Amino acid sequence: MSIPLILITNDDGIKSPGLRKLISIANSIGKVVVVAPDGPRSAQSNAITLEQPIRCDRVTIDKGRQIEYSCSGTPVDCVKLALNKILDRKPDICLSGINHGSNASINVIYSGTVSAAMEASINKIPSLAFSILDYSLDADFTESELFIKKIILKSLENKIPNNTCLNINIPKSIKSNKIKGIKVCHQASSKWVEQFNERFDPRGNRYFWLSGDFIIDDKTETSDEYFLKNQFISIVPVQYDLTSYESIDYVNSIFNNE
Amino acid sequence: MSIPLILITNDDGIKSPGLRKLISIANSIGKVVVVAPDGPRSAQSNAITLEQPIRCDRVTIDKGRQIEYSCSGTPVDCVKLALNKILDRKPDICLSGINHGSNASINVIYSGTVSAAMEASINKIPSLAFSILDYSLDADFTESELFIKKIILKSLENKIPNNTCLNINIPKSIKSNKIKGIKVCHQASSKWVEQFNERFDPRGNRYFWLSGDFIIDDKTETSDEYFLKNQFISIVPVQYDLTSYESIDYVNSIFNNE
Repeated sequence: MSIPLILITNDDGIKSPGLRKLISIANSIGKVVVVAPDGPRSAQSNAITLEQPIRCDRVTIDKGRQIEYSCSGTPVDCVKLALNKILDRKPDICLSGINHGSNASINVIYSGTVSAAMEASINKIPSLAFSILDYSLDADFTESELFIKKIILKSLENKIPNNTCLNINIPKSIKSNKIKGIKVCHQASSKWVEQFNERFDPRGNRYFWLSGDFIIDDKTETSDEYFLKNQFISIVPVQYDLTSYESIDYVNSIFNNE
Repeated sequence: MSIPLILITNDDGIKSPGLRKLISIANSIGKVVVVAPDGPRSAQSNAITLEQPIRCDRVTIDKGRQIEYSCSGTPVDCVKLALNKILDRKPDICLSGINHGSNASINVIYSGTVSAAMEASINKIPSLAFSILDYSLDADFTESELFIKKIILKSLENKIPNNTCLNINIPKSIKSNKIKGIKVCHQASSKWVEQFNERFDPRGNRYFWLSGDFIIDDKTETSDEYFLKNQFISIVPVQYDLTSYESIDYVNSIFNNE
């Protein structure tokens, strides 16, 4: 195989330690082009920027041999711009992350990290979204680094289908409990129960901060949350056809005589 | 059935004609509470606001008997706030829209209209997202109004499962070609091919406007795009489990020995 062209983005911003780690791993595999948001864009999902113009400029952040662009848009804007204005050919793979914090279970639908990877897969570029279950900017990637490199290499070597998007979550590094391996699995059933934090500004006007408790109501031993809890890396193949095929017949029985 | 409590939101903003029409229809069915963005939030997908506080204040826009709140957040923020801070009980149904423009096929993943409805369904509230294939703020709802009311009433009467989210698209009103009926169907395979519009500001710095061409590569006669083209209203049941179950075995064969 010739030297692979690797597109990298994230949602924590171009200076995020997780992104810098992913770039350094990818530099040892192929030619790397980074197009990443200029600051944090967590929980931006598949949002795109229609009401504002988008800036996207060449930058140098460190001494690595990657080429980098800093973008004022969302993670999905970054991928769209990369494919249409920056890269001179289709990349062999798109990597997103490493996100600081979980994108397992229901978090996948809010995640800018996974949405950026999904955007690449819509454009028939295999894509991998990486997240570590550690919100700290000092997250320890020592143990996960080797797994991440293996997953990228295997994905390139096995030529996973070009519309594949994999949502990869990595347990937090714990010295007493090493990562046990990789499990391909399904998204756990879960939801956030909001606890909006209500405050008043100096002029007496009310505002809210979004916050909440995360509830996993999945009892199976086959979900991403289950395997992460047991110190495995979880891989969930993700699709962008949101049709609930199993509901079509029932919904049709309600509306079919209209 | 007692008087239903109806939560309404959208992504075009609280003053959008499509929202005002949906409120007037819903006022004839039940008690209506509106929590909608204070301005346009198109293509915000499932984005939520974590980096900024959220404002949400009682407003009066017209003489209807609905109760209304204008919110600085995204469509999904509006639903989260409504369920956790504004409503004193779970609504019987959540309505989102009427969106000015299509949310059929791949547009579903970028749509704030559908994402707001999806958020309600995650919270076990049946939800209907309405969009009309007419970007004009003068879109003609005369013909679709009766269908929309019927769909809401049928959904309430038949007690559709509480985790149901229906993505409903309505063809543009054409005098010579009446709406033929309703079809429950699947999301068409399609994608946007971007054509970024490149410009330079007065200081000579480059910026881009996102724009693009929409490509439908679905040849089936069972998709939402097919039925819309044939002047039917399309209803796609939408799910938030993004797992590609059919890919699990294959992806597992790549990584199972790690």
